Amino acid sequence: MSSSTAAGRPYLVGLVGTGVTPSLTPPMHMAEAAALGLDYVYRPIDLTTLSLSPDAIGEVLTWAERLGYDALNITHPCKQTVIAHLDAVDPLAAALGAVNTVLLTPSGRIGYNTDTTGFAAGFLTGLPDVRTDRVVQLGAGGAGSAVGDALLRVGVTELSIVDVDPDRAARLAADLCARHGGSRARAASSTDLARLLAAADGLVHCTPTGMAEHPGLPLPADLLHADLWVADIVYRPFDTALLAAARARGCRTLDGGRMAVHQAVDAFELITGERPDADRMTAHFHRLVDADHDVLAR
Amino acid sequence: MSSSTAAGRPYLVGLVGTGVTPSLTPPMHMAEAAALGLDYVYRPIDLTTLSLSPDAIGEVLTWAERLGYDALNITHPCKQTVIAHLDAVDPLAAALGAVNTVLLTPSGRIGYNTDTTGFAAGFLTGLPDVRTDRVVQLGAGGAGSAVGDALLRVGVTELSIVDVDPDRAARLAADLCARHGGSRARAASSTDLARLLAAADGLVHCTPTGMAEHPGLPLPADLLHADLWVADIVYRPFDTALLAAARARGCRTLDGGRMAVHQAVDAFELITGERPDADRMTAHFHRLVDADHDVLAR
Repeated sequence: MSSSTAAGRPYLVGLVGTGVTPSLTPPMHMAEAAALGLDYVYRPIDLTTLSLSPDAIGEVLTWAERLGYDALNITHPCKQTVIAHLDAVDPLAAALGAVNTVLLTPSGRIGYNTDTTGFAAGFLTGLPDVRTDRVVQLGAGGAGSAVGDALLRVGVTELSIVDVDPDRAARLAADLCARHGGSRARAASSTDLARLLAAADGLVHCTPTGMAEHPGLPLPADLLHADLWVADIVYRPFDTALLAAARARGCRTLDGGRMAVHQAVDAFELITGERPDADRMTAHFHRLVDADHDVLAR
Repeated sequence: MSSSTAAGRPYLVGLVGTGVTPSLTPPMHMAEAAALGLDYVYRPIDLTTLSLSPDAIGEVLTWAERLGYDALNITHPCKQTVIAHLDAVDPLAAALGAVNTVLLTPSGRIGYNTDTTGFAAGFLTGLPDVRTDRVVQLGAGGAGSAVGDALLRVGVTELSIVDVDPDRAARLAADLCARHGGSRARAASSTDLARLLAAADGLVHCTPTGMAEHPGLPLPADLLHADLWVADIVYRPFDTALLAAARARGCRTLDGGRMAVHQAVDAFELITGERPDADRMTAHFHRLVDADHDVLAR
């Protein structure tokens, strides 16, 4: 017999990127695996603490394969560069040019992007019946790319993208139009925000503002109004200043934990072939974030 | 919080060597961990299937550390060469010049030898009250070195070592005397076996003869007699031709599974800090060997 058939397949998974040591994704996966009765070890592989260059991503993949890893989640700054080291890439991830999940299979390394599928799933379950005719997206970086792609897939008719770097907003809008056909995405200037939001159904926030390290509001609170739904991708804290201001004005809101959980739900299913319980995984995540706050508060 | 505090420390352990894929040590560890309620993934890292040279052992250690391994068991042909890549070596292992267990700790890589402690523990529990004045050891290779050292530690007064290579027997005897003081170990010729065994309390067999791939008896059966205890280190099968012949002559016997289990018991305790249940681990091991035979028989 082989070791893998001893007591069900034990899974070995890693998270590769800079500064990933405190990530809650590993314990979130392991808590769900425990609930499903799976043996599952998920290790952070922190390029920062290991003093490894992001250029070492190919070597990390090679050794992870040799040392029996089943899969890796990939995060900043390797989501693009990892692609050159893969044998196959899922079409959604290939279109985005970014991979956050790599399966190390006997027949090769296969890349996926569950940031974009996770945002879509979180949006559809968290704001299931909202209007999506006109949506404003703030932020056109890596997370913004995955979110913008998801927004066009879930049916947004007109997506206006605003970024502090107008060129980056223009590039993302052009990419999205090339990928999805038509002219549903376009770049807009921050000076247009008031006008765009006044007529918008929703606002999606994809910049770091509101994180514990970058507190504050990403736009003037008086641009928010009760007819707007507001989605934030920041999740530490869950209740960002933006979401609090939006609720105060009567907006429906979607917190960043949704995307964080659903990217993990989708990755977990790719890795194990078993669909996790998204509600239970959300509960794990909230518990972990709360425990994290407790630790920080001590 | 860190991932390791999510639901108890999850352990990640590997077995490095050539041809280790079918080893029963990984599933034996994992079965005991499951019984103790520990999350524990143990992967074979087979240099043969990976097309890696044994010289890569240093690189394997480096990457195992980077990828979050807690410990490695080391087997043929790396037990000696691994030592150059360690930060500290336990005195028993250092004296033997062979390491089979490496803990990858935040403060460095520490080497141990649980082959020798495992043989001693197996001997003391399996043949607790036998005379050990005069013992004959057949085989002076790597396993023979660990066993000879253990025999002197448990109090053998006169150890006669026989090997097909007389120089190897002489070297081991000289090493043991240097290590333990005095002249309790000495090399002997195979032509002396009849005389030595006639006067001996025990025989310890440390050659590959009797393994499924090397069937047969390592010495003429009529040299065995009822006043002799016989210990074999071969464990696939448990009941070797030597042990069957010994039992037929009324000898007390000790099978090779004892050493295999107790080296794992000691390694498991070093890795986790928890003492496993040796009887339960023996039961796992017998179940695994039986399942293995079933597979081979199909």
